[in-house]
Amino acid sequence: MRAVVFDKTLKYVEDYKKPIPQPGEALIRVTLAGICNTDYEITKGYMGYNGILGHEFVGVVEEVNGEDKTLVGKRVVAEISWGCDKPDCEWCAVKNYRHCPQRHTLGIWRKDGCFADYVTIPVKVLFEIPDNVTDEQAVFTEPLAAACEISEQLHIEPCQTVLVQGDGKLGLITAMTLNSQNYDVTLVGKHPEKLELVKGLGIKIVLLDEFDSKKYDVVVEATGSVSGFESAMVHTKPRGVLVLKSTVATGKELNLAPVVIDEITVLGSRCGQFKPALRLLERHAIDFSKLITAVYPVEKSIEAFERNKDKDSVKVLIKF
Amino acid sequence: MRAVVFDKTLKYVEDYKKPIPQPGEALIRVTLAGICNTDYEITKGYMGYNGILGHEFVGVVEEVNGEDKTLVGKRVVAEISWGCDKPDCEWCAVKNYRHCPQRHTLGIWRKDGCFADYVTIPVKVLFEIPDNVTDEQAVFTEPLAAACEISEQLHIEPCQTVLVQGDGKLGLITAMTLNSQNYDVTLVGKHPEKLELVKGLGIKIVLLDEFDSKKYDVVVEATGSVSGFESAMVHTKPRGVLVLKSTVATGKELNLAPVVIDEITVLGSRCGQFKPALRLLERHAIDFSKLITAVYPVEKSIEAFERNKDKDSVKVLIKF
Repeated sequence: MRAVVFDKTLKYVEDYKKPIPQPGEALIRVTLAGICNTDYEITKGYMGYNGILGHEFVGVVEEVNGEDKTLVGKRVVAEISWGCDKPDCEWCAVKNYRHCPQRHTLGIWRKDGCFADYVTIPVKVLFEIPDNVTDEQAVFTEPLAAACEISEQLHIEPCQTVLVQGDGKLGLITAMTLNSQNYDVTLVGKHPEKLELVKGLGIKIVLLDEFDSKKYDVVVEATGSVSGFESAMVHTKPRGVLVLKSTVATGKELNLAPVVIDEITVLGSRCGQFKPALRLLERHAIDFSKLITAVYPVEKSIEAFERNKDKDSVKVLIKF
Repeated sequence: MRAVVFDKTLKYVEDYKKPIPQPGEALIRVTLAGICNTDYEITKGYMGYNGILGHEFVGVVEEVNGEDKTLVGKRVVAEISWGCDKPDCEWCAVKNYRHCPQRHTLGIWRKDGCFADYVTIPVKVLFEIPDNVTDEQAVFTEPLAAACEISEQLHIEPCQTVLVQGDGKLGLITAMTLNSQNYDVTLVGKHPEKLELVKGLGIKIVLLDEFDSKKYDVVVEATGSVSGFESAMVHTKPRGVLVLKSTVATGKELNLAPVVIDEITVLGSRCGQFKPALRLLERHAIDFSKLITAVYPVEKSIEAFERNKDKDSVKVLIKF
C-alpha cells in the first residue's frame, strides 16, 4: 500500500505491507489525513520515532477483528493513544489512555500512523463521525480535541480573559475552539494573513508588533517556539494559568523565578477526548474550512510536507 | 539603632536611624529574627534590594500610629507583604497583598526589614502570637505560612503521595508542615544529619543516593538549586502537580516538553497567610526546636550569616 514513512529521512513508498487487524482492532481505509507540527518535529528527531507518520485522519472501517461489527462501513476518527487495559493500570481504569506507560500512540510511539492507505486501530478508541460533518471538518477532530482539553483540565470562568499566543495551526485552532465555547479570547500572532483567517468570529486579534503588556488570567502558549514560554510568563497575571501546549525538541535557558514570585500555574496540556470535539463539529459551532491551505494526493506527500513548512501555511491535508 | 544592612555588601551597623511609624503603622521592638535563604539570595543580587534585611521575626508592639491601640505591648508576627489598599486594586480587594503591584515587602522590596532593633509595619498585617507559643517557635511563622500556602493553592487528597525535595530549611519546614496536616509525605535529601532532624514524626525519609525512580502525585521542589526542577519533573506522575517553591537568581537550560507530554501542573508557590500557620503552632502540632542551628546576638550578625551558609546549618536566629 501507499504510505508516508519516516526512517531517518521522510519517504513516500508504494509497497508498504498492508496491516492485519489484531484482536480488538479495526482495519480502516484512510480517506483524508492532516499534517500536524508534531509530524514535522518527528522528522527532526522528536520521540525517536520511525515508521508510518500521521495521527490526524478520517477513514472508513473495512473490517473488525472482533464480535461487534457495528462500525463496519462507517466513517470514523480515532483517539491517538490507547493503553494496556490491564486490570491494575490506574490510567486505563479511567480510560485516560494517553498516560498509560504501555500505551501506543498512532504515528508517534510504537504504532504505525495513518499516512497510508490502511491503518489498524483498536475499536475502543474509534468514534463514528456524525452524518452532518464532512471529511474536511472531521479531519480536524484530533487537534480540536486537544484544544477542548484545556477546558477539561482547567475551569475558566466566563469573565476571565484568555490570551492565545501563536497564529500557527495550534494557535488558530485553540483560539477558535475556546471562542466557540464562549470564552473571552485574544489571539496574538506575527502573521496578518493568518490572523485574517479567524476574523469576524468574535476573537480579539492583535499583531505581535502592536501588542501591549496587558496581563491575562489564562495564557495559552501555542507558538511552538522555545521563546514562547518566557513571553507567556510576562503576559500571565499573578496567580494566573499558563497553559503550555507547545512541545519543542530543543531546550532553552530559562529562569522560573517569575512562576514562583507571581504564583503562576503552568499547565501542561497535550491531547484531548474526542466526544466534546465531535459535539462542536456536529453543532456546526466551528468551521475549519479557512484553515485548509492545500490538499495533496498521497503521491505528493513529500511536497505536502514542504508546503506545511511555508510561513503562510496552516493545515495541509493528504487525500487518498 | 542596631541593624543588619545590605548595600552592595552585608554590614552590621549601630547608628541606623530608628524608624517612625506612619499612619496605620506600628513601631515594633524586634526580639528574635530568623535568617531565610532569600536573605542570602538578596546578598547575591536577588530583587536588587538595598536596605535593612530580614522578614522573619518576633517583636513587641511599642507604639501604634492610629486609633486602635489594642496591640500595644503585645507580641506579634507580621505577614511580609502589604498592598496599596486602593479601592480599584483587585489584589487588595481580596487581601492578597503579595500580588498588589504597589506592594511593599519587608526586607525584600521597598521596605526596610526586621534585622534591626525596631521595625515599622502596617497594623493590618500584624498577628498577635498566642500565649502558649514561645518566641523560638513563633519566629518560624513566616516560613510555616509559606508551607501552609501549598494546601491553600492545591487540594491534596489524603491518599495521594507527596514528595518534598530538599533537606534545607525550606524542604524540612515544608515536609514537617505537610506532615502535620496528615498528608502522606516523603522527604528526599542529601544530608543524613539534616534528615535526622525530622525522624520519628511520620515523614518517610530517603537519602538521595538511595532514592528510586518512584513517581508521586505531588512533588514539592524545595532544593533551592537550579537542577531541582528537572529532577522534580522526573518524579511527578503524569497529570500530577509539581509545586515550585525554590526561587533562584540564575537560569538553566531547560526543556519543558515533559510538562506537556505528562500534562504536569507546575504550581508556583511563594508566601502564605499567617492564620493557619499560627493555628498549627497554637495546637502544638509542630515543633521547630530541632531546626534551630544557632542563635547569635545581633552584634554577631555577620557571623550568623556565615553560619547560615554551612552545609549542616538549618535555621540561624538573631537575638536582640
